[in-house]
Amino acid sequence: MKLKIAVLAGDGIGPEVTNEATSILRAVAEFGGHDFSFVPLLIGGVAITEAGTPLPTATLDAALECDAVLLGAVGDNKFNSLTPDKRPEAGLLQIRQALGGFANLRPSIAYKSLAASSPLRPEVTEGVDMLFVRELLGGLYFGAPREWDREKEVAINTMRYTKAEVVRVARIAFELASKRRKKVTSVDKANVLEVSQLWRAAVSEVAADYPDVTLEHQLVDSMAMHIMNTPRNFDVVLTENLFGDILSDEAGVITGSLGMLPSATIGGAVNLYEPVHGSAPDIAGQGKANPLGAILTAAMILRHSAGLEQDAAAIETAVVKVLDAGYRTSDIARGQTVGQTPVTTHEMGRLVHEAL
Amino acid sequence: MKLKIAVLAGDGIGPEVTNEATSILRAVAEFGGHDFSFVPLLIGGVAITEAGTPLPTATLDAALECDAVLLGAVGDNKFNSLTPDKRPEAGLLQIRQALGGFANLRPSIAYKSLAASSPLRPEVTEGVDMLFVRELLGGLYFGAPREWDREKEVAINTMRYTKAEVVRVARIAFELASKRRKKVTSVDKANVLEVSQLWRAAVSEVAADYPDVTLEHQLVDSMAMHIMNTPRNFDVVLTENLFGDILSDEAGVITGSLGMLPSATIGGAVNLYEPVHGSAPDIAGQGKANPLGAILTAAMILRHSAGLEQDAAAIETAVVKVLDAGYRTSDIARGQTVGQTPVTTHEMGRLVHEAL
Ligand SMILES: CC(C)[C@H](C(=O)O)[C@@H](O)C(=O)O
Ligand SMILES: CC(C)[C@H](C(=O)O)[C@@H](O)C(=O)O
Repeated sequence: MKLKIAVLAGDGIGPEVTNEATSILRAVAEFGGHDFSFVPLLIGGVAITEAGTPLPTATLDAALECDAVLLGAVGDNKFNSLTPDKRPEAGLLQIRQALGGFANLRPSIAYKSLAASSPLRPEVTEGVDMLFVRELLGGLYFGAPREWDREKEVAINTMRYTKAEVVRVARIAFELASKRRKKVTSVDKANVLEVSQLWRAAVSEVAADYPDVTLEHQLVDSMAMHIMNTPRNFDVVLTENLFGDILSDEAGVITGSLGMLPSATIGGAVNLYEPVHGSAPDIAGQGKANPLGAILTAAMILRHSAGLEQDAAAIETAVVKVLDAGYRTSDIARGQTVGQTPVTTHEMGRLVHEAL
Repeated sequence: MKLKIAVLAGDGIGPEVTNEATSILRAVAEFGGHDFSFVPLLIGGVAITEAGTPLPTATLDAALECDAVLLGAVGDNKFNSLTPDKRPEAGLLQIRQALGGFANLRPSIAYKSLAASSPLRPEVTEGVDMLFVRELLGGLYFGAPREWDREKEVAINTMRYTKAEVVRVARIAFELASKRRKKVTSVDKANVLEVSQLWRAAVSEVAADYPDVTLEHQLVDSMAMHIMNTPRNFDVVLTENLFGDILSDEAGVITGSLGMLPSATIGGAVNLYEPVHGSAPDIAGQGKANPLGAILTAAMILRHSAGLEQDAAAIETAVVKVLDAGYRTSDIARGQTVGQTPVTTHEMGRLVHEAL
């Protein structure tokens, strides 16, 4: 199996965590006799600094030649005064758009041995296994017109969806649900927004093709509450772009740390893989970052871009083993510390490697 | 003290809970020798049924003649197929706009005796006392153009803010914070949205006038997580309309039930008071609804429209007493039931009355 992976480490803790993820991928390749190669490329704040733009053409061209793109994190407070189109985050939005993946998959799982890391009671989180399917190329993130008119002192952004955009991402949600617990919860604000009414109608139409999958609609405000109160009620959660941004971060509370969460963006020319966490500039370069989000993201590469389901599952099992053995980066060290061993980013990566 | 209060009971559990709230207000009036009168008016689904429109002119005209408006809840699944401009919720948005109040105050408090009702651990919620200041007349709720073009199969909504709109609501947040723990957390998505960049700049400008209040900015996705992880870190939370809708419902998880949360909307011609919960059609008319949100909303009327701070505080103390004595509507009966007495909507109202 041959796989060329673009590695866009990005800002802050991005390089540290992608390093551990690629180490794991190398180990899988060696063990399985696969040929994985890695192409380091610039994005985000480092790209602004080194190449004058958050997504250099060279990065995009090379990424489009690869079989998968692994992205670390983007964002650097240094650039806070720039307008959105010039900031590190613009590089992320541009590459998302250029690669064309519209379905961002974000699993939210409660690990038994991390139950103490969550602010939620263990009886609430026990057994939770949700999968967010977040639409990634529409809504307020990309809608035009968008402008901050400093003279007139007014700003606008546009939330826009076509039916086709909703249908294609809904299909992915239903496909995934039909292989899971057969329930899709679609999130909108249909009591206020016209966009949400289109969303609800389009999702309901797709649902007709999946009679064995139950569809439920939830308003985004209620959903923000239900996710905390009764997370076990949810299987696949389908959302537009911004709602998915907010709710999937909120769901990080179930796992106990954003540092644990992987994501995969599928449906485009090249799949894009990124841990859900940000660049966390406050802890960058200190070996404090949790690499498990990135490592679990690597597992998603194997699953969705290489068809190596067994290897993907092996990584996920190795992560559970390491957690069960009590190893903790600081973000998941909350709660009682008896039987826990604090570890650095790199040590955590090595432990997963050994457990493989 | 004379006070004319428009009572727009609305749909679902709206009538039941406003009934208990007005009973308490009558008791306060009698005890204090005040002259409170109540003007029942139609809004929402019942208004569509009885008058053909979710906000009849008669309602609006009469409400504008009152000193305060108490609203129960709007929303009825019967009208789900209507477009947003014809639904019960349109009545709510229209009266919000017509009354002109732009600052929606939503306290989120952890009651000691309700600690078991929250899915969050008691050590996380202990001592939480947050106040959301949600901008209520701007953003996606009111921005134009807004349309679902069924022919072209595309829909748009517009998120729009002027600097003046942000400044006026920010001032209220800073004023309130300066009388509390002197911290404002402003929520936006400034790494992506132009509207958020204007928002952040305007809020920062206002902050300069309040040197004793600390201002912090949080991205909405991170904030959704922080509210659950470290709710004690927050004092006043300032948000645009939709972000406030989502986050204040999420914060209901801290108190244990949305049924406990009051709100007041100030800054306009007539203040508008509404419990945060919705119409809850599934339990309407069964005596199951929690009237404490509406009763605490009545306390906010006394505080913000009548200057009766002592009476407002007395209601709040009475609510705490009743909770401490173990009385519970079903929404707050989660957790251990030892020492708890289940009560109906009306019984709960009567208990608060007695505790006064
Ligand atoms: C960095 C930011 C642009 C991004 C987003 O909002 O999509 C991030 O929060 C995420 O969720 O991947
Ligand atoms: C009913 C609905 C229009 C309303 C809103 O979104 O503002 C409600 O959710 C609220 O928070 O008061």
